[in-house]
Amino acid sequence: MIKAILFDIDNTLFPSGEFAELARRNAINAMIEAGLDADATETYAKLKKIIKKYGPNYPKHFNALLRELSMGNDPKIIAAGIVAYHQAKASIFPYPDVPKTIIQLREKGYRICVASEGRALKQWDKLIRLGLHNIFHDVFVTSRKSEKFYRSVLTKLKLKPQEIMMVGDSIEKDIRPARKLGITTVLVSSHPSKEGDYRINKISELPAIIERLEND
Amino acid sequence: MIKAILFDIDNTLFPSGEFAELARRNAINAMIEAGLDADATETYAKLKKIIKKYGPNYPKHFNALLRELSMGNDPKIIAAGIVAYHQAKASIFPYPDVPKTIIQLREKGYRICVASEGRALKQWDKLIRLGLHNIFHDVFVTSRKSEKFYRSVLTKLKLKPQEIMMVGDSIEKDIRPARKLGITTVLVSSHPSKEGDYRINKISELPAIIERLEND
Repeated sequence: MIKAILFDIDNTLFPSGEFAELARRNAINAMIEAGLDADATETYAKLKKIIKKYGPNYPKHFNALLRELSMGNDPKIIAAGIVAYHQAKASIFPYPDVPKTIIQLREKGYRICVASEGRALKQWDKLIRLGLHNIFHDVFVTSRKSEKFYRSVLTKLKLKPQEIMMVGDSIEKDIRPARKLGITTVLVSSHPSKEGDYRINKISELPAIIERLEND
Repeated sequence: MIKAILFDIDNTLFPSGEFAELARRNAINAMIEAGLDADATETYAKLKKIIKKYGPNYPKHFNALLRELSMGNDPKIIAAGIVAYHQAKASIFPYPDVPKTIIQLREKGYRICVASEGRALKQWDKLIRLGLHNIFHDVFVTSRKSEKFYRSVLTKLKLKPQEIMMVGDSIEKDIRPARKLGITTVLVSSHPSKEGDYRINKISELPAIIERLEND
């Protein structure tokens, strides 16, 4: 019997990829408006390479971009990029069915948790901006979603693997390590897949799956 | 004859103090809503002490605040404070008469500049959010508004002291060092003062002062 449901954040509770792309494109347009002499499409491709090279948490992507474009450190252009980037990243919204489905599951008596990979402050920042920070019972943030992480969640919740469900979009992080421990896994994906015990397109499909599972 | 006008940013172009106080009060309310067990008024007083102790550019005021309150590092509470703080600080607006007065002076042929103390990126960030970043001809940012700084501005603009006017709210930073060099100074203040060649309540009083000066 399922007692707790764990949710991934990025691309599970909100369209993270879409907002990140929008934020980067906004930043580049703002930098060009502020005086950067470059083509928007080419600059976006260069920025993506820089993010890949330095990682997403590196704080000076735009400085690296200007170096890549053989420009000096221009605070007007960098500030323009940062302002536009943050304005887009600050206005994230959950997938429309997410808040009501989670509240509905909570009211049915399930323990509703977040299981997220990243920096605690950054993941909490997202939950707050999504307006979900007071809905979850527990928020678990780890630097890597390994089997060890899922085992530590079981210990903290004082539950057995068969009492937990993990919901997420990443086969590598949300499905495989959790499933190895016997946790019921639900893949959020629009593409057919053999991974996960269940696959859903939208979070609103979750209550029906849980109901079926409880009646088996 | 005046050829260039230098403007201070904080409390000259926008009510910086008011927004900073609003941002801090919002942050504390958000932290209490996120679980901080403290009184808002007392916490605000503690935060002000911390900002005084560590300086305004220290990036971890809220961590220091939780330590001061003998609480551990709680990422939910800190993230709640950061989000609320940035949302308030991100929505700064110029004093209502500032944009049209500056554009009017620019159209009359004056070189319109910013002379600001702080970090270049942070000062540009403000100009961009105020929607003024494309109106100024030049932006000069220094770590300290000393006589040396004003001399370097004269050199960069290739102008003599009597061709420049400095407008700002700080006697220490905007008036005294500029006046020593012979720059015409205008104090923005609602209190009578013997400092500065002129005193105005609002930026919109500036064109009349310049006109009188030119006709003398």
